[in-house]
Amino acid sequence: MSKQDDKKFVQEIADINLDFAQWYTDIVKKTDLADYGPVKGTMIIKPYGYAIWENIQAELDKRFKASGHVNAYFPMFFPLQYLQREAEHVEGFAPEVALVTHVGETELAEKLVVRPTSETIICEAYSKWIKSYRDLPVKINQWANVVRWEKTTRPFLRTTEFLWQEGHTAHSSQIEAEQETLDMLKEYEDFAKTTLAISVLTGKKSQKEKFAGAVDTYSIEAMMLDGKCLQAGTTHYLGTNFAKAFDIKYLDRDNQQKLVHQTSWGVSTRLIGAIIMAHGDNRGLALPPAIAPIQVIIIPIASHKAGVNDVCLDIFNKLKSANIRVQIDNSDKSTGYKYNEWEMKGVPIQIAIGPNDLELSQAIIKRRDIIDQKQACQLSNIIQTTQNMLQDIQQNMLQKSQKHLEKHTVIANNMQELTQAIQNNNFALCSWCGQSKCEDKIKETLQATTRNMPFDQHLNNSNCVCCSDKAKHKIYFAKAY
Amino acid sequence: MSKQDDKKFVQEIADINLDFAQWYTDIVKKTDLADYGPVKGTMIIKPYGYAIWENIQAELDKRFKASGHVNAYFPMFFPLQYLQREAEHVEGFAPEVALVTHVGETELAEKLVVRPTSETIICEAYSKWIKSYRDLPVKINQWANVVRWEKTTRPFLRTTEFLWQEGHTAHSSQIEAEQETLDMLKEYEDFAKTTLAISVLTGKKSQKEKFAGAVDTYSIEAMMLDGKCLQAGTTHYLGTNFAKAFDIKYLDRDNQQKLVHQTSWGVSTRLIGAIIMAHGDNRGLALPPAIAPIQVIIIPIASHKAGVNDVCLDIFNKLKSANIRVQIDNSDKSTGYKYNEWEMKGVPIQIAIGPNDLELSQAIIKRRDIIDQKQACQLSNIIQTTQNMLQDIQQNMLQKSQKHLEKHTVIANNMQELTQAIQNNNFALCSWCGQSKCEDKIKETLQATTRNMPFDQHLNNSNCVCCSDKAKHKIYFAKAY
Repeated sequence: MSKQDDKKFVQEIADINLDFAQWYTDIVKKTDLADYGPVKGTMIIKPYGYAIWENIQAELDKRFKASGHVNAYFPMFFPLQYLQREAEHVEGFAPEVALVTHVGETELAEKLVVRPTSETIICEAYSKWIKSYRDLPVKINQWANVVRWEKTTRPFLRTTEFLWQEGHTAHSSQIEAEQETLDMLKEYEDFAKTTLAISVLTGKKSQKEKFAGAVDTYSIEAMMLDGKCLQAGTTHYLGTNFAKAFDIKYLDRDNQQKLVHQTSWGVSTRLIGAIIMAHGDNRGLALPPAIAPIQVIIIPIASHKAGVNDVCLDIFNKLKSANIRVQIDNSDKSTGYKYNEWEMKGVPIQIAIGPNDLELSQAIIKRRDIIDQKQACQLSNIIQTTQNMLQDIQQNMLQKSQKHLEKHTVIANNMQELTQAIQNNNFALCSWCGQSKCEDKIKETLQATTRNMPFDQHLNNSNCVCCSDKAKHKIYFAKAY
Repeated sequence: MSKQDDKKFVQEIADINLDFAQWYTDIVKKTDLADYGPVKGTMIIKPYGYAIWENIQAELDKRFKASGHVNAYFPMFFPLQYLQREAEHVEGFAPEVALVTHVGETELAEKLVVRPTSETIICEAYSKWIKSYRDLPVKINQWANVVRWEKTTRPFLRTTEFLWQEGHTAHSSQIEAEQETLDMLKEYEDFAKTTLAISVLTGKKSQKEKFAGAVDTYSIEAMMLDGKCLQAGTTHYLGTNFAKAFDIKYLDRDNQQKLVHQTSWGVSTRLIGAIIMAHGDNRGLALPPAIAPIQVIIIPIASHKAGVNDVCLDIFNKLKSANIRVQIDNSDKSTGYKYNEWEMKGVPIQIAIGPNDLELSQAIIKRRDIIDQKQACQLSNIIQTTQNMLQDIQQNMLQKSQKHLEKHTVIANNMQELTQAIQNNNFALCSWCGQSKCEDKIKETLQATTRNMPFDQHLNNSNCVCCSDKAKHKIYFAKAY
């Protein structure tokens, strides 16, 4: 391969500062995360992208089980009339549901919904399963595909079909259900920080932005590198809304029939979009070690020279024994091409070893999160050095994400400050009267929406950023995906 | 709970010898494996059933990855015309595919198939991805839900929607693709024996019974306790049939454009049906330790007495540390009720501990696979004893399965012997001319179908069991699910 080839990846990716949207699309395609499916808005999650999802799944599943949840699987088809039983719920989802009407040439007697979310079919089951206080709480999670027909789609961020998990719990009291809603929000926040190395804002959504059918929705909101916001996970306190619609009652200790209080919560393959847009750069993708399919790539240099392959294989085996996800690139591509390709694919650590290094009993280690930084490492220390560096990269990526969020979050006291904040691609923390009309006006004029209300609510007698009425809430405004 | 309650489980399950079909349905419902979904033929896989599926998935996924396969995810909707590109394929699947025709109130321009299997959409992608011999082999697996609208359905065995894995590989040569087909068959066979403790017959399906679109289909066939056969997994050599239909060509080393040779292979949640019908009895379910969600249940007796709970917890912690899936039943049910319930749920080992046992520093261990056998075990030996017993149960269940298969497999040389074999609920190994008309006749008169042709084909100049023409194959006939 020529020197020109070495640079071809970088040339093929749009400049992150000039065209962020194109940069995103290029990353998805060129790093083999996903491809477009034949039906508009669908995507094929390719092996490299799916391996990230598997790592996300494994970590979340462990957390859910540790907090007493079990998995189950509910059918993806249910009668359209289920959706119609909860008034807000049907209003939110009916326009975008895919409907199965035929089998082969035969028309079905009843139109079937392809699940956009599973509250209704799960509530129908819970109404049969839950009879007594002894049956509570029910804490079930499901890993599944769901379908929502969106007008504008982008791989991972908004696709017709996507993969997710949806937790559905039923409790005997409001307090317990509300606690579950907050516990799972905390779980998502901790997961985003610890595993995805993404700093997030947690809080309650406005009534306008909540889940269709919920009493309250909470979210984690992440800041992408272009300053736009991505809702990365939500938890809902459903109250007794669905319990009423589906008649989910239990006989309590006091011999009274009572409605259960419910929650639901979910994150999806959208998280992969969050990872791309929170950590990438002009060199390509940058993956946090905790979810990187390949944490370390070993690149042999002049591998035909005596000893090179043996030493690479030895390091490979030692790293593998230390539970590090490692590969050797033995392809016939040029070394420069390999450096660029694995950098573009976001592999956290590259280890290069050639004949000169062998003479010095060393390898050259390059980390993805600090561009152009290389260090020589004695082969005898390489396992420990790699382990430490993976931890350090994970922490450093989170710190960068935190700093980015802090730097681009401002307080806006009036429409002028809010306008400026949004135009500068910042998040704006504002005082707000709580009325939808002010949300609508800001959305119309600034294309910014309310994100969430932080738990720390010091209003200090402030007034609404929009109408100047007395403020009821502190809330974040931002442009969002 | 009264003594009467203690026996209520057993009374609620139909007698396995009198009504096997009802026994099966009772087991599925009473042991909380599954429930019916709202749409005809669909099922809810409840947490206890889903935990079995998770264990199956984990073991298979490990095996697939060890043999160089990677996971990906393809959309479940594709245009109806994809199905129509391979003539046999569309004939096999078109009548039973669910079609999405509307989104909300809007009719779609093109009818969409909900995948019954993914050959076509995956081949369409492969035709874009595979360009050079360097791109081969492609060895992708997918964990997904699929939909086939069947007239007669039963939980796990045949449901409108089911969960499965589907492997789809592309190779540069026929030899390599055929080897993959046989390798994966071997993998399924070993998995069935080692993990599910089910003995299976491996071989090639007849042309009539092969997968729609394949050149050859191979299967593992298991014998259920009623003597009927269950096809438990299939691997297909697809030849270049789909490569032609979807134009999947690569530039070979010799600079020629060539068609790829392909395989596909799958097992599904049907395996849970196989486990139920291969190992159960009148007490309920019996689960092989390798896939049992709970391998050991600890039952405290008179738990209010000093020391009982502490010792139970101590054993629980030790077993857990030894990576055994263990639970303590601390519910307020009677001890007798607990014994029966966990026996019915198929838990391999029960450990009961009461005040009398404490005085003797022992526990009482009961294994599920040998009814009414109990043994006292010194607490100091309990971890080792439990570990050994789990292994022994796994082996013993496989041996029972093997013996059952051997006992009920006979050689039938003519229609009279075949008739008797089928009437006695046996598998019959027959010589066969290879013509569909004989398969059809036997199916019509005996309701038995060809299962597969064993790899050991010693024909010895024999004649077809049905038409007496010269035999071309040895093949198994049996009634099947």
